[in-house]
Amino acid sequence: MASPTVLTANAFPTFPLPPKATTSPPTSSGPIQKAELDASKLTYTFTTNSSPIPDEVSAGCSDLTVVTDHIITATWDISTGWAAPELKPYGPLQLSPAASCLHYATECFEGLKVYRGYDGKLRMFRPEHNCARMRLSATRVSLPSFDPAELQKLVTTLIAVDCPRWLPKDRAGSFLYIRPTMIGTHAQLGVQAPKAAMLYIMLAFIPRLDSPAGGMRLLTSPQDTVRSWVGGFGYAKVGANYGPSLVAGQEAQREGFHQTLWLYGEGECTEAGGSNFFIVWRREDGKTEVLTAPLDDRIILDGVTRRSVIEVLRGGVAGDVEVAEGKYTIGELLQADKQGRILEAFVTGTAYFICPVSQIRHNAKDIHIPMGHEGKHGDITGRAKGWIYDIMYGRQEHPWGVAIPESQGL
Amino acid sequence: MASPTVLTANAFPTFPLPPKATTSPPTSSGPIQKAELDASKLTYTFTTNSSPIPDEVSAGCSDLTVVTDHIITATWDISTGWAAPELKPYGPLQLSPAASCLHYATECFEGLKVYRGYDGKLRMFRPEHNCARMRLSATRVSLPSFDPAELQKLVTTLIAVDCPRWLPKDRAGSFLYIRPTMIGTHAQLGVQAPKAAMLYIMLAFIPRLDSPAGGMRLLTSPQDTVRSWVGGFGYAKVGANYGPSLVAGQEAQREGFHQTLWLYGEGECTEAGGSNFFIVWRREDGKTEVLTAPLDDRIILDGVTRRSVIEVLRGGVAGDVEVAEGKYTIGELLQADKQGRILEAFVTGTAYFICPVSQIRHNAKDIHIPMGHEGKHGDITGRAKGWIYDIMYGRQEHPWGVAIPESQGL
Repeated sequence: MASPTVLTANAFPTFPLPPKATTSPPTSSGPIQKAELDASKLTYTFTTNSSPIPDEVSAGCSDLTVVTDHIITATWDISTGWAAPELKPYGPLQLSPAASCLHYATECFEGLKVYRGYDGKLRMFRPEHNCARMRLSATRVSLPSFDPAELQKLVTTLIAVDCPRWLPKDRAGSFLYIRPTMIGTHAQLGVQAPKAAMLYIMLAFIPRLDSPAGGMRLLTSPQDTVRSWVGGFGYAKVGANYGPSLVAGQEAQREGFHQTLWLYGEGECTEAGGSNFFIVWRREDGKTEVLTAPLDDRIILDGVTRRSVIEVLRGGVAGDVEVAEGKYTIGELLQADKQGRILEAFVTGTAYFICPVSQIRHNAKDIHIPMGHEGKHGDITGRAKGWIYDIMYGRQEHPWGVAIPESQGL
Repeated sequence: MASPTVLTANAFPTFPLPPKATTSPPTSSGPIQKAELDASKLTYTFTTNSSPIPDEVSAGCSDLTVVTDHIITATWDISTGWAAPELKPYGPLQLSPAASCLHYATECFEGLKVYRGYDGKLRMFRPEHNCARMRLSATRVSLPSFDPAELQKLVTTLIAVDCPRWLPKDRAGSFLYIRPTMIGTHAQLGVQAPKAAMLYIMLAFIPRLDSPAGGMRLLTSPQDTVRSWVGGFGYAKVGANYGPSLVAGQEAQREGFHQTLWLYGEGECTEAGGSNFFIVWRREDGKTEVLTAPLDDRIILDGVTRRSVIEVLRGGVAGDVEVAEGKYTIGELLQADKQGRILEAFVTGTAYFICPVSQIRHNAKDIHIPMGHEGKHGDITGRAKGWIYDIMYGRQEHPWGVAIPESQGL
């Protein structure tokens, strides 16, 4: 090699690195009061071009998600805080090619549903948990904080405006999917917490996924792929958990399975696809146990359906069963299967609700899990599902079912 | 509790889950030939409203990234493949609020620079590695594949069009930053590999970051936060690696540090911020060693500057030093510091180039690392940096410096 130029002190003009932060973090108030997210400031611009209401089946299965007439957006800026939210006709977003969310995954979302009850009312199911988790997720990726109650008011308003027409009273037993999303919009390629963001909420059709013919089939995650890890962000509903999981999901589908059963460490069962996973088995001591992965190492999502299932089963809805949050491995499931101790399995989540699992494949070994009558869910799965279904659809009055008045505004 | 409705087999109408995949994966050709990314099909629409060229310092430090006149975009669709790329005036993107990249972090990027040489020529530095890594990153998050050589041609074209004016010959020793990006644009809220995507390339000003006054100061990552893990995606330049790392970065800045030194497992040093990290120390056997984390467990990025530094030091540019890729812990650094064996430290990356590190804090203990004359880089750091600098800026003809003809078109 030829001899190199050894740089002297002055060879590189020095440009400042970002200065030591002297401003307050985004969530606390600095000397200038920053506006909080405030649903009462919502402005309304109604569409003059309402879409026709599609039938539920074709809309749910469309290759492009079918949405309702309106969207609610709220922008945030580090110096001024939250601007007044806007309800307006649904349409594309204009984003800078340099927007933080397109490079650094400064993005998070929630998934809820609005249900048209058999009593004619619209309801959400425990929405306060989703709204609180949205804040948790946002702050995990340096997006701004907000009062979850304000998010819930905005969601409620969008439902009140769009659902009388999009989820009409003659569709009792149907639902729409609610997708609150937050993205970093700051057009800065420097790797940093975004100084501008946008919250938006949309309502959409998604298919019913809770009763696939023959039950859901799971393929365990590839040996070389781990979804989430201790010290990571598996507990937050951030985009970063999803994109990198899709390769394994595609592989499972190519093999004829619906979802990936994500293993961790020594084969601990964690989540199935983007849902929580439950096993129902007869323990070696003969006791029937419903078991799901624990939250304490923060590698799985604290699902609203998950916690509800745990609570209703502990409440005795399926009689005398133990309900536990604890680690268990695919090896233990294989062993239990050999001994005929596996009774049921299911996944829980907003999209899949409570969906029975009939098969798990791991290293070319299959666990075939009993289903109930006529190839549907087993008894314990069905009892939890029925109980929650009745609350969602107004067959059972319960504080978990939050009715939404169908007048416009808050 | 009141007795629940136990659901019967017919209570839930069954809607189809996504069918077992029968189409080919995106990267292979199906019965219908899908178009490949093809730079020769590029169309040109030039701006009629050129921006004035800003001075380098203010543009680099702007709160909103300052970009050049044009952007190149190319869209991809699962059924037709890659459309003809377009060079057009830089402007906002229109994206569906349901676009995959805004929810599921189906996004990746690259970072390169174009240098205005002292010989008057424009050059990139080993761009074929960035283009190859872009493909690796894209496929890790289920985005479409492409021929890296075509991406390099597109980057070259954008430079050829915009840099005669934006990085003129009287700015020898200056650079612009190149940001190829790919995002999933498919408007589907179902968690799945996107069926539509967009590649785009922009040129931007970023500050010089390689010589902060007094050197770069690093704070080790919080005990409860891990950037990347074995089985994850730390080796890929995907958005999902960045958003979740920002909280620790903000914390470091609040404490007066520039970046986070990411630890793994038993305190292994991995990356610093978004850069690779090197230590130069005297081993216990007296030998001078330059050491950086290895690639084999795939938790760190295979940096182009990293590999170049390794290669030039192995080539003897700094005399008789050992150069090793291997695990080493913060505990070993603390121990070596006590014994006065730490000689230099630096980070490498496109944005930070080769930037000396002067301090590492871990659990309230400080390692103060010697800097060179006048508070700049030490000798070994400076020799590697000088060698590579000379190639970038045309002082040394070398195959790593890829000159770009300043005529329009390919």
